[in-house]
Formats: sequence, structure tokens, C-alpha cells
Amino acid sequence: MNFYVCLLQECTNSIPKLIQYANANNYNVVAVPINANMVPLDPYERDPTYPGTLLNAVDWNSKMIFMLSDVDVDSPSPKLREHSKKILLRDIAWAEHLQNAGCVMKRLHGPNIDNLAEIIKAKTKGNWFIQVPISNPTMGSFEHRKDATEAEIAEAEANDPWTWWNSLRFAVKHSSKVKVVIELTDLDRPSKETVRRWLGEPIEAVIIPSSLFVRNKSNYHVLQKSWQTIIGHLLAARANIIISANPNDMFISQYADYLRKLASDNNDTHVLNSYENLLEIPLQPLCDNLDSYTYEVFESDPVKYKLYQDAVQAALIDRVSDKDAPKKLTVVMLLGGGRGPLARAIFNAAALTKRKVRLYIIEKNPNAIRTLSHMVQTLWGDKDVRIFSKDMRDFSPPELADILVSELLGSFGDNELSPECLDGALKLLKADGLSIPYKSTSYINPIMSAVLHQNVSQLVSTVPAFDYGYVSLLKNIYHIDKPQTLFEFAHPNRVVPIDNTRCKEISFTAQKDCVLHGIGGYFDTMLYKDIHLSINPLAHTPGLFSWFPMFFPTHPRTLKEGETISVKFWRCIDADKVWYEWQVSTREAWEHHNAGGTGYHMRL
Amino acid sequence: MNFYVCLLQECTNSIPKLIQYANANNYNVVAVPINANMVPLDPYERDPTYPGTLLNAVDWNSKMIFMLSDVDVDSPSPKLREHSKKILLRDIAWAEHLQNAGCVMKRLHGPNIDNLAEIIKAKTKGNWFIQVPISNPTMGSFEHRKDATEAEIAEAEANDPWTWWNSLRFAVKHSSKVKVVIELTDLDRPSKETVRRWLGEPIEAVIIPSSLFVRNKSNYHVLQKSWQTIIGHLLAARANIIISANPNDMFISQYADYLRKLASDNNDTHVLNSYENLLEIPLQPLCDNLDSYTYEVFESDPVKYKLYQDAVQAALIDRVSDKDAPKKLTVVMLLGGGRGPLARAIFNAAALTKRKVRLYIIEKNPNAIRTLSHMVQTLWGDKDVRIFSKDMRDFSPPELADILVSELLGSFGDNELSPECLDGALKLLKADGLSIPYKSTSYINPIMSAVLHQNVSQLVSTVPAFDYGYVSLLKNIYHIDKPQTLFEFAHPNRVVPIDNTRCKEISFTAQKDCVLHGIGGYFDTMLYKDIHLSINPLAHTPGLFSWFPMFFPTHPRTLKEGETISVKFWRCIDADKVWYEWQVSTREAWEHHNAGGTGYHMRL
Repeated sequence: MNFYVCLLQECTNSIPKLIQYANANNYNVVAVPINANMVPLDPYERDPTYPGTLLNAVDWNSKMIFMLSDVDVDSPSPKLREHSKKILLRDIAWAEHLQNAGCVMKRLHGPNIDNLAEIIKAKTKGNWFIQVPISNPTMGSFEHRKDATEAEIAEAEANDPWTWWNSLRFAVKHSSKVKVVIELTDLDRPSKETVRRWLGEPIEAVIIPSSLFVRNKSNYHVLQKSWQTIIGHLLAARANIIISANPNDMFISQYADYLRKLASDNNDTHVLNSYENLLEIPLQPLCDNLDSYTYEVFESDPVKYKLYQDAVQAALIDRVSDKDAPKKLTVVMLLGGGRGPLARAIFNAAALTKRKVRLYIIEKNPNAIRTLSHMVQTLWGDKDVRIFSKDMRDFSPPELADILVSELLGSFGDNELSPECLDGALKLLKADGLSIPYKSTSYINPIMSAVLHQNVSQLVSTVPAFDYGYVSLLKNIYHIDKPQTLFEFAHPNRVVPIDNTRCKEISFTAQKDCVLHGIGGYFDTMLYKDIHLSINPLAHTPGLFSWFPMFFPTHPRTLKEGETISVKFWRCIDADKVWYEWQVSTREAWEHHNAGGTGYHMRL
Repeated sequence: MNFYVCLLQECTNSIPKLIQYANANNYNVVAVPINANMVPLDPYERDPTYPGTLLNAVDWNSKMIFMLSDVDVDSPSPKLREHSKKILLRDIAWAEHLQNAGCVMKRLHGPNIDNLAEIIKAKTKGNWFIQVPISNPTMGSFEHRKDATEAEIAEAEANDPWTWWNSLRFAVKHSSKVKVVIELTDLDRPSKETVRRWLGEPIEAVIIPSSLFVRNKSNYHVLQKSWQTIIGHLLAARANIIISANPNDMFISQYADYLRKLASDNNDTHVLNSYENLLEIPLQPLCDNLDSYTYEVFESDPVKYKLYQDAVQAALIDRVSDKDAPKKLTVVMLLGGGRGPLARAIFNAAALTKRKVRLYIIEKNPNAIRTLSHMVQTLWGDKDVRIFSKDMRDFSPPELADILVSELLGSFGDNELSPECLDGALKLLKADGLSIPYKSTSYINPIMSAVLHQNVSQLVSTVPAFDYGYVSLLKNIYHIDKPQTLFEFAHPNRVVPIDNTRCKEISFTAQKDCVLHGIGGYFDTMLYKDIHLSINPLAHTPGLFSWFPMFFPTHPRTLKEGETISVKFWRCIDADKVWYEWQVSTREAWEHHNAGGTGYHMRL
């Protein structure tokens, strides 16, 4: 299903009428107890229950969320437990009969989930929506109380509903068919960090009780600012809406309209949002030739080339005084010309500063050369420009450059081998020449993201998926702690011999009980002076979308609030390739990933 | 791409203008030589070719079919061969640069295809469209000539373009990325059998030269009846249209409109056409409970239940005279009531014949029982009806039946175990009682279908796919010979002991050179007297869609026209299951499939 607004009612005497009523009030799905008409336990009994022909198969699948009986299959009472199992299995059989790809919803009540997990694993069709309160109301009150004892807090923590869900998630082996439905209540407003943590979970929907609404001055039903913010975060993480209301509530269409508006306000309209949470293998432009599509995506970045232009402009002014401008030539070499966007930025910079520029464009992709050649003939006939179809490492220039310009950076800074390429191009540069960019820095932090973990796990049958780093538009994630600096590379690098291997260990602290699913990777790069590009979430350049973050997976483990997570990263090099290795340690060392570069590596 | 009509032109000096012109004339794709502007061979040369920025990536992918240079990489001249390879590889590199998921088209000229096959296998992106004349024009002329010698005919046959394609298909290992584009010519009108054979190939499109069109009395461009039929067959097999015309042709929009109309006339609007060529594992209703969706599909069959009603009606009239009608009760047992469609047919038959009927409905699916119970309460309150939630084999009836009614048949007749079920229900029937249906018969024939073979091959990594029988809506197939009778089962079967194992070998003759990809399976069933249902392609009940044919795969081998194909089938039974084994023999025995029922089998 695409985004939906669902009407939840605890009872109905006609499912088709409820659907009609919900549709008329701007809801596209309804959630009702599967035993809406009180089906007797014995399915052989000829009782007037509702028939399978009540709706057609498409409607059963697309318009209904079945709420399973609110029984406890993990009750301490054996009798109650067995009775509950019988009821739940009967509910599931009926749900599977009506829906061949549908959704059932089950409420979690406490930390015991073993029997439920077994039942979930045995059901093969459709998805499970696990209904969980967003927080423990007691916990919420502690956050504003100074007098609570540590024992009181510890006890309340054990009753944190996130912990129930976390146990269930491990017990069902992180199945992608099991999703969370978060239930809000007017008794408790969760803390920011509690809400943020849920964003790392596979959120299906959020249940909003009608009692959360208040009337504004115009007598219209609205949510208070604080609830707007909380629900806005969940909506931005693609949660659907379930509004729970009484059958005789007169205002249900107001709730739906209000929340549709809120959803649209919080809808991240990133042009690339079809990539959310997907894992992609990073590009290797050094050994693979990029295609037109990839160039086109890069070229459409609205801020990157403007900042490059600013950087070249500033450098030209610093290197050539106004007085010298009419005669002094600046030789610029563009390393990796692609289909010309940086060349355009350089010509713009020259025109705006009125500096004389000779541009050498070096490009190793013969297909891009065709487009560049065409541009020289049709657009740049009056420019001092020459194109070389070469690998920059093998290029012998007719003269040396004042400025090297390049965009060889990957999502993790150096992962498209900019250090190796720029070191190889050092011979092209005058002794006082400069490189744009002149520095790049990578950043990492620990991340919880159940969805990314599920996506990695799906790849395991074909590749050593936990030894790969991925490029991913991170959406459903929780930042366990803030990013910190990892590796730095400066250019030009005139050190002899140059060593581009690196190794560093960084410590982070879990801000809350959570699960570590992997390490987020980011970078920033200094183009000239303070002109820079960044995808570090703490300081992301507004509007920049050329680079998604990286994700280095780990096998999931639960962390306790306050626990220290040490992350060690290596950048390794041999004759043919460059690769990263990574390892997390808490009290003990976890798995060492990608030893020897057998998984993800960059070919030289 | 969905269905498209493409304009092919051998040259253009502006690709964007050609696309605009084509769009304006009702074409959605264009095919042009990739070197539309004569790109020089050396890609490093700065020649004014067309740039990658001419179109955006979406348009390159969705609006262009690139015709690769018409060079012969399998030429007998080594010099020409090497030069051709260089040109072709350059073309491919440029095509891959412009399209990240696009299509290139290459013309086949003769039987030598080895180098081309190697190049095709090495290209990883997008699809290959292989352009092949529909037939050898010489061959065509022989069909109308009595004077040709056998040697002449043999030589012409070796030049059959289908043979070229067949060699290529084997050389590229049946890759699903390699499709056929069939080229028509006004010099030659192919025979029916030639056209039919192409329907078994992965047809992408058909190229129609504008010269095929003639003017009708209203001065409008149309196709002759015989061409309409040929192209209609190809369109029905989901071929797209490529119209080849001169740049100055004034009538291209007439061609497009005419062919769009022809495509729509030949469009098989089967409600289930999203299932075409898909492989499904047959249902096992005896051990799995069917869901609502499956019942709904069955219930929507427009003719099945009407024919059942006719059969019951005829049987009631034969068993109870008009005179006895008011008092003589007929006991009908419905074995497998589902959600009630057959019960409805039986009640209708009773009402129309004014016969007294008592109906026992036996159904083992407890979920269907709920719907049936509801129907009894709400619709059938005035009927003499009782529901039993039982497996018919374990049912002890309060009285014996005059008529057993069942629909336990699968696509291959007995493959949902109707013989075993009905034998088990024999004890429910009076000595003079009858069964509707009273006989079912399976049919088989040898089939060529490259697409089905590709689909089977894709399953090999997860299951022993060549040991499975599949249910499939056969679309892209060629019937190598007509279906023949395989197994028969009659009911009630009062033979003691009953033996439901079977074994039979049937001989077929290849009507034309072709490839055997598997065996088609069909059935018919006699309901009462001559009232019957059939999915045998030679006598298919009009409108019946409850059953798709079956497909039993074999490993592909080329057959010669006139060659005998012996197909042996076994129906085997052990304590737990029933299964088929199959084996083809020509001059030698081929693989024995599904020995011991390790692949597809039906659990008892």
C-alpha cells in the first residue's frame, strides 16, 4: 500500500458499511477486530459470522487491517496461554483465508514474547503489524522528576515497550514482514530521544487516538504543537496514519484532513526519494566508465557547481591581482571533466573575475570525450581550452598547472580514490600551485536501522554482504551518537613517501538502549579557504544531493544506555586495490569486517 | 516498455527532431542507426558527433532503439572481421554510455554467429534485439513450385533465417536479454507454419516496411488481408510494431494509426492476461486450504457453473420422471463446496426441473465453512441442505447419494487427485448412483516456447525446476504437433482393486525444424452425457478460464522437420504422494524427469 490514513474502530456490525463510511470521510483503509461479529471459537460451528464473500479479494487485501484478538499467548497461566493460542491461531487462519497478501495487527503487552514469536514465524502470508505503546508512561514522568530513585528508574526501564519490541524483533530473526505500529496516548508525551529511536525501526504506522485532538479558536480539531512535532517526525520517516475513534465520533473527517495536511507538510520531497533505505554498491569511476544517466544525476545538483565556481573565483583573485589580470595567464587543469559541468564553472569564474584562464580538461572516459568535444566546437569556440583523453596518472602536460580542479570524491571522501589520483597528478602542478579541493575528511557514527539491516541480510545469499560498504539515502535510522572525524587527506601532498593507509579508533556513547546495525559514513571537503561541501549530518550543505551517506553494516546487538562503543577503521592498500576494514568493540571485540578486502574494495 | 509503435529511419541529422516528428505522428519510440551522424571510428578524435547531452537519460532509455552498424563480425575475411568487431564494440560502448537500460538492435545475415554471440554475452546492460527476416524468400517460392529438386529445397532450408536465430539462441545460452525482431518484406509472404513457429520465440517486435501498405478505395493506406492475418498473429503474441519508412514519406501517421487499430483488434483481453507465460506451482487443495482470492477467481468463470447446472438438470430429469417429481427425493452430495458456486448451480437445476433435492455439502476447509454457513442462514433458509466440515474420504453420511457432484480437477485432469478423492467417496454413493463428472482425460503435445524455457531456467538455483510441472497461461508458444490423449479416469470406479497408476508413450511428428522446450498438458471432462468442459486447444470450451494449461519442461534440443518425438508419461503413487514422471525420446532417450517424485508431487 502507498501512504494511507486508516480508521480504527473497536467494533462494527458491518464491515462493508464501515469501509464506505471511512471512504466518505477521507480514510482509505479501516482497522477492525477480525472477530467484528464475535465469531465463536469452534470454526465447525454453524454460527452467523461474516462470510468470506462480504468483500472481494482486492478489498480484503487493500482496505482492511485485521486486529487480532487481544489475547496473551505468553501468559504465565498455562490454561490462559493455551486458550489464547487457540484463539490466535483461529484468527490467523481466518485472516489468511480472507487476505492472500494482507496485514494483521497484534498488540504487545509486556516483555514475554516467545510464543508469539513462534506463531509469527509460522505464518507465511502477508505482514505482521506489531502494536506497541510509544513509551512507558511511568518513564515519561521520571524525565520531569528529580526525586525518583535509581531502582525506580531501572524498573521502569525494564518496562520500556521498545524493549518488548526489541526482544520480539530478535526472536523473529529481524524478519522484514514484521513491522511496528506505534501507539500514542494522551497520558504521555514521549521524549525527543524516544521518538528519534523509533525512527530506526521498521515503522508501518502510528496510531493516533482521537482524544489527542483539541479544538482551536475556530472550533476546529487540531493537534498541539508538541504532538505535531512528534507525529511529524514519524510521518517524515514514512509512517502511515491510523486514527482510532469511537463509532459515534462526529469529527473523523476533520482528523483525517488535518493529518493528511501534516503528512504533506512533513513529506520530504527529495527528487531521489525512491532511493530511500536502498543499498547501492559505490561507484568506481576510476575503473568503470560512468554512463550518461550517472553524469546527468550529478550535473543536476543545484549547489555543488556553484560552490566550485565560488572557489575557483576566489583562487583566481588571490593568485592574480586586478592589475595583472589582462595579461597574466592562469593554467587550470580539470582532472575528470565528465560532460563539462566543472569546465562551465571554471569558465564562469574566469569571466566573472576577468582573469585569463587556459583550461586543460583531462578525462579518461572516451564516451564523455565525445560530449566534451562537441561542447568545445559548439559552445566554447572562443575559449582557451584543450581536451585530453587520458588517465590523469599517465598524462604528460605541455605545461604545469596553477590550479588543479577535481571532483573525485565519494560518499566517504577518499573512497573513489581521490588521494591516489591526486597524488598521481602532483607532477602536473607548479611548485606554488594549489588543488581545489585542498582537503577531505571522513566522519562516522554508530547507527540503528532495522530496515537497512534487513536489506543487507537479503544480499547474504549472493555476496559477503556484511563485508561491503554501501551508499544509501538513510531514512529510517537512529543516530546512536553524533558523527566524529575519521580520516583526513590534504592536497597537494608533497610528503615523500606518501602513505595513504590509515587506522583510527573512535569511541561513542549510546544515548539510549538501542541496537547497533552498522556505521554511518560521511565526508566534507574544503574547496578553497572556507568554501566547502559537507554531507556530515551535523553540518550538511543545504540542497546538496550528489552524495548519499555510506553504511557499513555490523551484525546487530543490543546496547545499553551509556555504553561505550569503540569503532576502529582501517584504510588498507595493496598493489591492486584499496579497501576498508572495520570492527566494533563494546566490552568485547565484535566481528572484524572485510579483512583483506575480500568484500568491498576499490580497484586501482 | 509497454506496447510501442516505433518509427525506423535509416538516417537522420537530428535525433531530437526525429523523436518530435515521430511523436507528432503517433509513434512513441524511434529506431535509428547509432551512428546517425557518422561518428569516426577513433573515439579519441575530436569530431563533431552528437553529444550525450542531446537527450536526457530517461529519453535515451525509453524513446530510442539504437541500430548497431550493419557489420559482419563473423565474416570469412579476417581483416573485415577484425574491423567489424572494432566498429561493433565502439557502437556498444557508446550505446551503453547513453542508455543504462536500453536496447540495441543488430541484423543477422547468415548462419555464422559465433563472434556475435561472444560479443552479446559480454554486454551486460539492457537488451539485444536481433533483427531476422521472417523467412527465406527462396523457401517461400518453393511452396508454390512443383518443379524444385530436393537438393534445391535442402539448400534453401539451410538458409532459413530461423536456423540462424536458433544457432545464436543456443550460443548465447538462451539468455532472456536476447529477443527477436522479425522483419517482413513485400518480396515474400511467409507460410502459416513459418509464422506459427515464430510465436514460440521471444518476440520483441515486428518490422513492417511501408512498402507493405496498399491504398484502398478511399485512398487510405491499409494492409492486404493476408498480411493483416500474419501481423495479427504476431500482435496477439505481444509483438511491438516497428514501421520502417523513408524520411520523406507523407503517410507515416496513417501506418501508425492503422497498426494501432490492428493491435487493438488482436489484443487478447483475457482478464487474467497478467499471468501470460508465468509459471505457477499447481494448487494442492487436498492438503492446502484455498484462500478467498483463489475461490473468487474460480467463481468468476462465466461458463463452468452454467455447464454444471446443465449437467445436474439433465441428470435430475433422467432419474426422476415428471410424474414422480413432486414426491421423489434426489440426494445430491457436493464434494468440496468451496464458497458455494456449485451448490447454487444445483439449487438452480432443482428449481428449473421442479425436482426435489436434498443437498449435502462436504467441505474440508473450515474457512470456507464459515461462508457456507452464512449462506445457509441468509440465502438458503428454505432449502433442504446440510453442511459437513469433513474430508470426503472420512465422511460417514446419514444416507447414500443418488448423485455425487465435484470439481476436483486440475489443469491436467487428475493432478489435484480427483481419482483418489472420488474413489474414497465411492462409499457415499448408491449402487445406481452417478458421478458428475463421470470421466476425465488428459492430453499432451510437444511445445516450443523460448520464454517458458527462460522462466524455468530462472528457478533452477532454488528448486529442481526441470522436475516440476507448472500451470501456465501459454502465450508465446508453438505447437510442434497436435495434442493426443494420455490418461483416462472414469467415475464411479467400481473395479476392485482400483489402480490409479498409469503409463503411456505417445508419438508426435515435428511439423517443422524447431526446438522442443517441453510438453503441454491439458484435460477435458465429461460432466453428464455429452455435457463437457475442455481446455484441449483443439476443442477448448469457449469462455472457460478456470484452468490454464500445464507445462512439463525438458532441456531444449533442436528437432528436424518430420522427426518423430516419443513422449512417455508415468502417473506414480506411493503411501504419501502421487507424481508424474516424463521422458522424451527421439533417436535416443532424453533425460528422465522427476524420477521418484523428488520434484513436483501431490501429497495425499
